[in-house]
Amino acid sequence: MAWLTATYEIASEPEQIEARAAALALEQSVECPLEAIGDRRVLDEIVAKVDAIRPSGAGRYQVDIKIATETTGGEPAQLMNMIFGNCSIWENVRFLDVDLPAPLLSRFRGPRHGIAGIRTLLDAPERAMTCTALKPQGLPVADLVKICSTFALGGVDVIKDDHGIADQTYSPFAERVPALQHAVSEASQRTERPVFYAPTLTGTPRVLRKHAQLARDEGVRFVLVAPMIVGLPAFFDLVEEFPEFVYLAHPSFSGMRIDPPLLFGKLFRLFGADATIFVNYGGRFAYTPDTSRAIATAAREPWSDLAPTLPIPAGGMTLERVEEMIAFYGPDVMLLIGGNLLIAREHLLERTREFVSRVYLSALREATR
Amino acid sequence: MAWLTATYEIASEPEQIEARAAALALEQSVECPLEAIGDRRVLDEIVAKVDAIRPSGAGRYQVDIKIATETTGGEPAQLMNMIFGNCSIWENVRFLDVDLPAPLLSRFRGPRHGIAGIRTLLDAPERAMTCTALKPQGLPVADLVKICSTFALGGVDVIKDDHGIADQTYSPFAERVPALQHAVSEASQRTERPVFYAPTLTGTPRVLRKHAQLARDEGVRFVLVAPMIVGLPAFFDLVEEFPEFVYLAHPSFSGMRIDPPLLFGKLFRLFGADATIFVNYGGRFAYTPDTSRAIATAAREPWSDLAPTLPIPAGGMTLERVEEMIAFYGPDVMLLIGGNLLIAREHLLERTREFVSRVYLSALREATR
Repeated sequence: MAWLTATYEIASEPEQIEARAAALALEQSVECPLEAIGDRRVLDEIVAKVDAIRPSGAGRYQVDIKIATETTGGEPAQLMNMIFGNCSIWENVRFLDVDLPAPLLSRFRGPRHGIAGIRTLLDAPERAMTCTALKPQGLPVADLVKICSTFALGGVDVIKDDHGIADQTYSPFAERVPALQHAVSEASQRTERPVFYAPTLTGTPRVLRKHAQLARDEGVRFVLVAPMIVGLPAFFDLVEEFPEFVYLAHPSFSGMRIDPPLLFGKLFRLFGADATIFVNYGGRFAYTPDTSRAIATAAREPWSDLAPTLPIPAGGMTLERVEEMIAFYGPDVMLLIGGNLLIAREHLLERTREFVSRVYLSALREATR
Repeated sequence: MAWLTATYEIASEPEQIEARAAALALEQSVECPLEAIGDRRVLDEIVAKVDAIRPSGAGRYQVDIKIATETTGGEPAQLMNMIFGNCSIWENVRFLDVDLPAPLLSRFRGPRHGIAGIRTLLDAPERAMTCTALKPQGLPVADLVKICSTFALGGVDVIKDDHGIADQTYSPFAERVPALQHAVSEASQRTERPVFYAPTLTGTPRVLRKHAQLARDEGVRFVLVAPMIVGLPAFFDLVEEFPEFVYLAHPSFSGMRIDPPLLFGKLFRLFGADATIFVNYGGRFAYTPDTSRAIATAAREPWSDLAPTLPIPAGGMTLERVEEMIAFYGPDVMLLIGGNLLIAREHLLERTREFVSRVYLSALREATR
């Protein structure tokens, strides 16, 4: 009999916290009153238990709940159901952390490539890496090809689809992917350095698989997937079935009461994200430096035998912040700047080169400091 | 060129609301500064537009955004990405409603059975219907069979797995489903009235499909699926591939800033839920009567040619509330009481019969009032 520990923050009056914690334990296990249960084994081994209650600020408590690993069935959908299913609806509950015992953890292989694998593909053993995005959606494939070639000649490591580019009539997947893959191959031959195109994989599971096969056949190595859009279990399946891809996880549709380091760092890593795109502080989203740093830590820190996930801070970043970001995150990072390159319009190549060289230089500066 | 309209509530200072609404429109379309866009067609036909801003309370505004339907690619994953992707991360934004133009709506067939189909299967042309749940998880199959037979002999219409019962070692799917399906068939022969078992379908897409096939082969007609757990696109795929099932949607893992009537009524219906289990007021969750009523309205009201979805208010309901709930929701409802039946232990049959007869009687009373 093994237990996982899930930690929640509950907003509560002091006199109610014990009852609320107990209710949470029932909700996330047997979901019925204890008096309805006659079976001794269920009471002892299946009902979740409140393990600890710690005050964590005015009217807030951190509560550890022990949940029987047996209830998760050892698979991703039911794991999420047990650790943050019904209680996700309680507005006073926030999911902070989860600690999985080794036998359960071993059912999840995590990133197949991780930071080390990405570094090998990019031939970038130590430095910070670069990423940009093809935008805006609505452009025909030929225009995306031009932008992509410019980015590639400018020296960016990974050029991803904007996460809004999917399979629309103006740039259909089956036409776009071969064209952009060809564009990066050509640029790579000219520059004699690796550069990768990462198409968006999205859709229902049947479409996902069809698109993944097409991308694989074209020689694509990096893909962009929003795990919360396609569904965490579908993301897990995709990684299992197409382990040759490097998965860049995108945070779209993730606005739940889950602590960002837990979701974008730990859970996306558990489910197989090789890199995790998340909100950097000071951009279009209201994250603090502490939150952004904690996401990077959760993605990279040692965790059983799961490979580390590469942090990709993003969300309205600018060239002017390159040095600050590399100083903040260190070299195990990929900087993603999209719109702030594209504003250069006809000077896109120069601005891309400036981005790449600023990353190289500051990585060098950091390394020799 | 067609546009869908998405409505959000934005918390904002009055002097910032215009800028915030404009930022939301960019975030949910091209996701880059306007100055980065040189293409006239993209500016005119792809960039989302702020259509209206209405004050809706202190520091709150309702904002209508017109989003080009072309950007959705006409499929469920990308639709969600466009209407509530990145902006789901903005804590000051709440997704209130969406209005889809006919050509886009026609890509979604909605419920295949709906209220009328369920009534036919249950041979219940007019009355309110009953549902209960097999609990607690952790019991071996033989014990679940006993409880299920008792519920069935007691006259309940639909007996569903607890949403925590998935594919665990103590009641594996492949063993449980045939046994419980057999139990309801036998009871149905004895009582000479229809009764259905609804197993949980969950897991990654590959497991979902395997389990759906097994259930279909066993003659199962009702299934329980948590669309947010398996992922909305996977749910959509399942409904497409297995249209013979009546889908009971469960709200687990749904705690996002989406208005409950929109998610549990409208979107689940759009994606194919024949019935929607949601939080009734006055139970284990803090919903108001207005919210619960609005969910039922969104599920049932006329909406293009989509069949109405059956509301199943639940979440800690008791026998004592049967009359009140039927008066509140009217006859097009299915009442779900689980734990409050099971507390009867050795008197489960009697309590089940009381539940069923109270529903029959109050439905009759309402009909003749």
